[in-house]
Amino acid sequence: MSLAPILVVTTGGTFDKQYFDALSEYKIGETVIDKLLAIARVAHPFRVVELMRKDSLDLTDTDRALIRATIDAAPETRVVITHGTDTMTHTAAALADVTGKTIVLTGALAPARFAESDAPFNLGMAFACCQSAPAGVWITMSGSVFDALKVRKDREAGKFVEI
Amino acid sequence: MSLAPILVVTTGGTFDKQYFDALSEYKIGETVIDKLLAIARVAHPFRVVELMRKDSLDLTDTDRALIRATIDAAPETRVVITHGTDTMTHTAAALADVTGKTIVLTGALAPARFAESDAPFNLGMAFACCQSAPAGVWITMSGSVFDALKVRKDREAGKFVEI
Amino acid sequence: MSLAPILVVTTGGTFDKQYFDALSEYKIGETVIDKLLAIARVAHPFRVVELMRKDSLDLTDTDRALIRATIDAAPETRVVITHGTDTMTHTAAALADVTGKTIVLTGALAPARFAESDAPFNLGMAFACCQSAPAGVWITMSGSVFDALKVRKDREAGKFVEI
Amino acid sequence: MSLAPILVVTTGGTFDKQYFDALSEYKIGETVIDKLLAIARVAHPFRVVELMRKDSLDLTDTDRALIRATIDAAPETRVVITHGTDTMTHTAAALADVTGKTIVLTGALAPARFAESDAPFNLGMAFACCQSAPAGVWITMSGSVFDALKVRKDREAGKFVEI
Repeated sequence: MSLAPILVVTTGGTFDKQYFDALSEYKIGETVIDKLLAIARVAHPFRVVELMRKDSLDLTDTDRALIRATIDAAPETRVVITHGTDTMTHTAAALADVTGKTIVLTGALAPARFAESDAPFNLGMAFACCQSAPAGVWITMSGSVFDALKVRKDREAGKFVEI
Repeated sequence: MSLAPILVVTTGGTFDKQYFDALSEYKIGETVIDKLLAIARVAHPFRVVELMRKDSLDLTDTDRALIRATIDAAPETRVVITHGTDTMTHTAAALADVTGKTIVLTGALAPARFAESDAPFNLGMAFACCQSAPAGVWITMSGSVFDALKVRKDREAGKFVEI
Repeated sequence: MSLAPILVVTTGGTFDKQYFDALSEYKIGETVIDKLLAIARVAHPFRVVELMRKDSLDLTDTDRALIRATIDAAPETRVVITHGTDTMTHTAAALADVTGKTIVLTGALAPARFAESDAPFNLGMAFACCQSAPAGVWITMSGSVFDALKVRKDREAGKFVEI
Repeated sequence: MSLAPILVVTTGGTFDKQYFDALSEYKIGETVIDKLLAIARVAHPFRVVELMRKDSLDLTDTDRALIRATIDAAPETRVVITHGTDTMTHTAAALADVTGKTIVLTGALAPARFAESDAPFNLGMAFACCQSAPAGVWITMSGSVFDALKVRKDREAGKFVEI
């Protein structure tokens, strides 16, 4: 386990939602990833690429192609992607044939800006998984490391479950 | 990656420190692990054993033998130990010859009860590492997964570094 | 300044907003007032009446009449009302001719459930104002105690200002 | 209630306690007042003077004379003092004969850096009290506005009570 740099790609989702009072609206704001990693006292080298700020229900094939191309072009073999939870598995499928990289998708059911949020724990899970797991695509949600092609989101139950 | 249960052994450390105003003192309080795992929306099965509430500078060989015996006797093959950071590597060495289990030690440099703490992220790292990494003893601190026998704490720098 | 009980009337607003992932929506949830007052270690006697869970843009004259009637009927002479900020001054006007009571309206620009919110500070302001100020209607927002009939919300600037 | 500026004098206490892992110790750190007031979206004019960083059990008569002199020399007629809770009433007595100013002492039983702390609520109480109350010395703790000369701290019960 050497200190090979981690690429963090942010795409939006509940993870980065913020409340804009003047609009009486919740929107995805600037990513909080750098702040979370600073609070977590992360010394491991990493690089953040803020690709988009979208609810995952609004992601298009073009968006997924951009996520894919970004990962293909990157020198890093360890990748963490923060993503809305609703279509996380759909994006994972679009990355299934990437070779030589350990890719981990995660997100949050409560915004990171909330006092009580799963965001920091999930981000920690993803950071460890991309260092410990073999090459492939993974999802870290609900306390489990899942094979990203064998999991689905159970929306009503508020958790991810193995298929 | 199946949903094999995780054993969480808590021993104290900064992770669980609390402020007692009537004593004008900070002491290790009741473990906050269950609360953190609830906030993290963990659905993965786990069992918590609160073994002791000690600053790791106060841990004795008897304490370490108890930690070892608890892990040996447990049915779980995946173990997370929350521990003070000052002698975490010492306890890891005492577990080095356990076989057939993935054991991950973690802790925190700021108490979990703080608004800005590395505790939830580190706990998430440990939860993922015990599911993804091969059998052996690991430490997840400072954003990295370390071989527990090849790491030390750099106290002044406030981080763990590879030896 | 004796320990005369305080009546806390909650009507909703951003103060109590919560994120419901299964609905991909933010809605006003159960009031967090009791939890905030417990964290604030409030020993002063108080009584909470959760009247409604509305965005203040949705409050009707019937709602305002209910708020008014509740305050008129209450034995308490000290009243705190948590309320959405958009029409707080409108409700204040509906209470202008209540006699013998110190009524303080407050709210929040960020939900109390957020890690960084003005909610606890504003609630503290209101608790003190209803004990220190003379009878009448007041608004505590943006760090100031305002005569509730001489203030307006400057939405773009995100603050309340004297008229 | 005009926007007359508020002088905030910080003296230390639990309010500003911070954990320094490299020292395995809790010490009073740089005051968090400016950060709390920013989170509270305070637009009211104020000025912060960080006089000392002491546990109130360590305050001397010289310290109290300095606090007194600072207030006497200030142009502001509204003063908030953050202070350790153990000898808050002692310092209040040293300010009893100041004329023409509304002085409010407050503090916290849990550090402001904690996720669950009475600090922001208490600070809000003090900000409102110095605007609403008549000239004199007040203490805002435990949800009540107290005449500072008629209150004591009940350490075991963790609250302030009227004498």
